[in-house]
Amino acid sequence: MNQTVKIRLNDVKTLAHDILKGAGYGADHAQSIAEMLYTCQLDDCQSHGLFRLFMCIDTIKAGKIDGQAEPQITNPGKAIIRADARGGMSLLAMQAAMPELIDKTREFGVAAMAINRCFHFSALWPEVERLSAAGLAAIAMVPSHSWVAPAGGTRGTLGTNPLAFSWPRQGKMPFTFDFATSAFARGEIELYKRAGKPLPDGVAIDKEGNPTNDPDAALGGAMLTFGGYKGSALSIMIELMAGPMIDDLTSLESHEFAEGKGGAPYHGEIVLAFDPAQFSGGKLAENDARAERLFADIIDQGARLPSQRRFAARERNLHRGYVEIPAALHEDLLALLP
Amino acid sequence: MNQTVKIRLNDVKTLAHDILKGAGYGADHAQSIAEMLYTCQLDDCQSHGLFRLFMCIDTIKAGKIDGQAEPQITNPGKAIIRADARGGMSLLAMQAAMPELIDKTREFGVAAMAINRCFHFSALWPEVERLSAAGLAAIAMVPSHSWVAPAGGTRGTLGTNPLAFSWPRQGKMPFTFDFATSAFARGEIELYKRAGKPLPDGVAIDKEGNPTNDPDAALGGAMLTFGGYKGSALSIMIELMAGPMIDDLTSLESHEFAEGKGGAPYHGEIVLAFDPAQFSGGKLAENDARAERLFADIIDQGARLPSQRRFAARERNLHRGYVEIPAALHEDLLALLP
Repeated sequence: MNQTVKIRLNDVKTLAHDILKGAGYGADHAQSIAEMLYTCQLDDCQSHGLFRLFMCIDTIKAGKIDGQAEPQITNPGKAIIRADARGGMSLLAMQAAMPELIDKTREFGVAAMAINRCFHFSALWPEVERLSAAGLAAIAMVPSHSWVAPAGGTRGTLGTNPLAFSWPRQGKMPFTFDFATSAFARGEIELYKRAGKPLPDGVAIDKEGNPTNDPDAALGGAMLTFGGYKGSALSIMIELMAGPMIDDLTSLESHEFAEGKGGAPYHGEIVLAFDPAQFSGGKLAENDARAERLFADIIDQGARLPSQRRFAARERNLHRGYVEIPAALHEDLLALLP
Repeated sequence: MNQTVKIRLNDVKTLAHDILKGAGYGADHAQSIAEMLYTCQLDDCQSHGLFRLFMCIDTIKAGKIDGQAEPQITNPGKAIIRADARGGMSLLAMQAAMPELIDKTREFGVAAMAINRCFHFSALWPEVERLSAAGLAAIAMVPSHSWVAPAGGTRGTLGTNPLAFSWPRQGKMPFTFDFATSAFARGEIELYKRAGKPLPDGVAIDKEGNPTNDPDAALGGAMLTFGGYKGSALSIMIELMAGPMIDDLTSLESHEFAEGKGGAPYHGEIVLAFDPAQFSGGKLAENDARAERLFADIIDQGARLPSQRRFAARERNLHRGYVEIPAALHEDLLALLP
């Protein structure tokens, strides 16, 4: 970013909340979305911070989301929580069901939450980090739209299907990752297009199914998964577990449902949580030390743990009490205020 | 393979059983190992079939395994089964605890099994396929020895850490994958060495941490994960969940424990199981159709589902009543008979 604007931490939430309310989201939806945008912005995660307000507004404009939907929470299995978003944004349902997921995980040792019938735009790391902050290990998965070809295929069938994981560390920031199973994020290809730069090899195919380095051909064709056939298999697992297993849409079906109208995709999400205290049979300290030795061995050889940059940003921004966003973004956001 | 020998299906188990008993494995361990070798050999999975008898024998010779160990099954959490192999091979413990994992999954919707303090040599797909045969979805993970460098690192810290998944399909073979999170299997590098062929890029680094195509330098250095930093993150997740989370060794610790003596590594394993009938709130048929549409869309574009070749081999071998193995392997196996 060239010119930036400083926004005080409290003002991040207020700005987001006011824009969302003005666009037609109910107060509790506006609050839960603003909370997520704040969490991402605090970590300088620009792609999932205030910038996402545009997608939230586009989603309302596309006309399918219910900005007032009241989530409904049920238990289809003893260790399963279903948070039915009932056609609203995912976050209010997630926020409402999260305490029960934590309780169930502590009760059974392992539990799962399905968020259903939701519009979804958010990063997954804030959700798994909410669980690791409660001392639990967690995995989250979502489908998206069918922009990604399976290994050996010629057209989009899979979503960008992110996978997130967080592991609680005693007195330290957690070990967290959150990555798309596509080689590139959709937005990255758009950035290459805007910059007039060729894509690296292995990122996309054209509409005939041939490898391409042309961002336009890629956007008209299909993206590829990371890691060849292994990444492709993993992406199919995410389709199944966060789609048909929980009675919700695949990326193919979500794509069709959108009818090209834009905004956030509509589908489900699955979150798995594990209580290491129970799994380790009470030997938590000994096993924490084991995990820490692993992390130390990684860092000692000059490798980075995922999310280290994000945690550094969080510490800095909390300390100084403000975040920085591009001035142009700030101007565009102010124009969205009612 | 050049010259092959046909072995009738029943004789596969008998041969394995007799060799294992003769080497010092108790009858129930010999049975559970022979069952696994048969399952793999039936699918022409040569790398994990009868060939693995050599590793089983080496493991006994290395002197650390208890060939008579009696597994102990406990419940450290309501939906957690711990199968303590007590220093024996993993398979008897797995076999003993599997029915309880299935029961718990049906009771709670989701459940987990930790296999602890075991020597481990086997593929993971037979275990997740045992669960998908019971109508459950399943994930399995194990660490190994610290031969694999994390992304951006210079030395071995992670194991080859395989991840397996199986999804039940109505009236069809399941959707299953089972892959190492290292770019290559350790054995593949040995094969390149024997053939005098250079390794592809991105598979290994030498002992100074520089990229190498030389199999010898790779064996003296470290392997790399598949898929760059994403594969590396996934491998660390496997270390944590199949290691410290379940009160068992990381690949670093397993490597140290072995003291260079060879044979199967000693560590833990985690298996997660999910009951789609509960997750989908009773709408199983509708969601099965959704998954089948996804598979059909993948196959329709000329891509393959993982394990298709293996399932074809199984069908052929069951039909004709025998498997084929290399004549040289058969001769070496006969020499192991007591």
